[in-house]
Amino acid sequence: MMEERIQIVPGFSWFGKNIGIKDNTLDFGGILSDVPCQAAGVFTKNTIPGAPVLVGKEHLRNGLLQAVIVNSKNANVATGLHGVEDSREICRLVAENCGIDAEMVLPSSTGVIGRRLPMDVIVNGCSTLRQDFGKTKQHAENFARSIMTTDTRPKLICAQVGNATLMGVAKGAGMIEPNMATMLSYFMTDAELPAEELQPMLRRVANKSFNRISIDTDTSTSDTVVILANGLAGPVDLQEFERVLAEMAVYLAKEIARDGEGATKLIELVVSGASTEEQALLTAKSIINSPLVKTAIYGADPNWGRFVMAIGKVFNYTVDVADLRIFFGEGNDRLRIDAEILDRDEVPLAEISEMLKKDEIRIEIVLGNGPYSEKVWGCDLTEGYIKENAYYTT
Amino acid sequence: MMEERIQIVPGFSWFGKNIGIKDNTLDFGGILSDVPCQAAGVFTKNTIPGAPVLVGKEHLRNGLLQAVIVNSKNANVATGLHGVEDSREICRLVAENCGIDAEMVLPSSTGVIGRRLPMDVIVNGCSTLRQDFGKTKQHAENFARSIMTTDTRPKLICAQVGNATLMGVAKGAGMIEPNMATMLSYFMTDAELPAEELQPMLRRVANKSFNRISIDTDTSTSDTVVILANGLAGPVDLQEFERVLAEMAVYLAKEIARDGEGATKLIELVVSGASTEEQALLTAKSIINSPLVKTAIYGADPNWGRFVMAIGKVFNYTVDVADLRIFFGEGNDRLRIDAEILDRDEVPLAEISEMLKKDEIRIEIVLGNGPYSEKVWGCDLTEGYIKENAYYTT
Repeated sequence: MMEERIQIVPGFSWFGKNIGIKDNTLDFGGILSDVPCQAAGVFTKNTIPGAPVLVGKEHLRNGLLQAVIVNSKNANVATGLHGVEDSREICRLVAENCGIDAEMVLPSSTGVIGRRLPMDVIVNGCSTLRQDFGKTKQHAENFARSIMTTDTRPKLICAQVGNATLMGVAKGAGMIEPNMATMLSYFMTDAELPAEELQPMLRRVANKSFNRISIDTDTSTSDTVVILANGLAGPVDLQEFERVLAEMAVYLAKEIARDGEGATKLIELVVSGASTEEQALLTAKSIINSPLVKTAIYGADPNWGRFVMAIGKVFNYTVDVADLRIFFGEGNDRLRIDAEILDRDEVPLAEISEMLKKDEIRIEIVLGNGPYSEKVWGCDLTEGYIKENAYYTT
Repeated sequence: MMEERIQIVPGFSWFGKNIGIKDNTLDFGGILSDVPCQAAGVFTKNTIPGAPVLVGKEHLRNGLLQAVIVNSKNANVATGLHGVEDSREICRLVAENCGIDAEMVLPSSTGVIGRRLPMDVIVNGCSTLRQDFGKTKQHAENFARSIMTTDTRPKLICAQVGNATLMGVAKGAGMIEPNMATMLSYFMTDAELPAEELQPMLRRVANKSFNRISIDTDTSTSDTVVILANGLAGPVDLQEFERVLAEMAVYLAKEIARDGEGATKLIELVVSGASTEEQALLTAKSIINSPLVKTAIYGADPNWGRFVMAIGKVFNYTVDVADLRIFFGEGNDRLRIDAEILDRDEVPLAEISEMLKKDEIRIEIVLGNGPYSEKVWGCDLTEGYIKENAYYTT
């Protein structure tokens, strides 16, 4: 169903290039549609959002977009009115060079917080846009690479829905605990989708994918996920489309968690048997965010007591330890721990440790007999995270 | 005022020794008063508390204690009814050997979660208690050492209040974000204190000291702080006593943060200008717990944008970036950043970086013009934390 191979989406062009914002890696990229697109977006809940988030929300108000322009290496956050003006100016430059309206451009910036964009460099970078945009797979891949910051690899996924093609691109490796939004992620499709369905669909999808990952509990000021539908392929089955979009969003969200700064392992955690949806999610977040759980998994240390601790620090809900079960692995191979076990020799510690050495780990916590469950993704915490972040800015 | 030198507290004895729970370091310790003490305690809010917490709360119900018994290397948590029976049995053994009632003994255990205590070893360790207890400074220091887990040094502080002496002892280096309670900490005094004042006084003091530190956002299942007052020195000025107790609790809390697992720096953070007490505390906690802030401080990286991010992820309150000021350092030397500054050359990044190289760092964040402020303590996040916790249990 889901294909990692790049397929171009009819009617879309991309570019990704270096304009020298900080160094000589790709730092400027864009998406352009031949025709205006129905569009929807969800953005960070951080109360100090970046300037491009403010401008992007404004431009999305009428549900139409035709282009996306992104720079990495600088987030354009905490830059005041000047930052907002810079972001508007970039949209104007893109519009002028591509022959569209500035309000049809969604801007994004990602990188260091608190510095003004080098506008001279960006003005220069915009001057050749008409030649930069192209419709090949290489152009799409260059775009995916140009939005990376500490990511170690581009994140791109394509699929067919009926006659239409859907492509998703994402970036993100640190400052990741999206909340009602996500890191930078863009979906493009030539499906024809009703405008009024697009926004609620994207919100539902983001909520079960990007909003269920955490790398380091920090919520970025720039989180943005946007979908552009140019309609060229005609209508598609909406349920089928949402199913594929959700599958793709989960794939990209997992890719982000797997590529977390310094991470060596992807953790998939299911909390079930909860008495409310809130209990399931709070408990899942408490565990996936616990540095003691994350370091134990890094060291393949079967220290399941740390799960008990993390479950117990969800103060609003009590759990009966007698009901608590922890499963490592999947299917018939999974290993079970009863938290209140009498004979400690029964605990398969050596087997759990072996399982924790894999690079993808599934854990399920059963809290009791309640009907609610949640699934979240995260990663281990390693020396690599420290190294990457102790010396990042300057 | 505050003296780090050990002073014995009249009427109290201590011991600390190795009984071989895990290795050959000190792992068993106790406090004994010649006479019954007025006592108060606050305990972890973790909903899966250790067995000794359950038994300790029960024994404290009448506000009287005469002894404390602590083992390290094993927390006796998630050990079910057997764990509770083990904890009661230890109190019974201590009482029998010291000629007091079992209900006068407060038990504590700290260490790995999810294993039963080796009761044969403990029974043996209790048999010589009468000889183990002694009234010298060395005995008190041995006690402080015996309760350590990943701590790198004992934490002990003494002071005079009128005719009375007050001693405080604490341990803790990981799984530390106490909530309405603290890690293990014991205060002993020969002051005569009214029973009805003791519990609310201890709660007020813990709330502004131990409850204001965080090492890693994880809340232990064993947190306990207890005060024993044997009354031998007669009454003291209560306000003066509370002031000294608070000063001492802050000292021990800071010692815990400074000795955080892998930490190289103590961070003191003040958030002021908040519109509510909750905003001040949530913002302070958001910053002191942010792994990106903690790693930046470790690397002496003046990446103040990460403070902006952490302030903005307190979703319930909005902050006007135009009002936001960040101060590094204290007094006349302190360096100021206005978050929405226009000319980036004004930001003294090199000086801030120099300041961040110190081993004690004070930062103040002014959110706006509100009347509320909070002070919290934490530490940097380093490779040492990862190493210590990736391979701890087994």
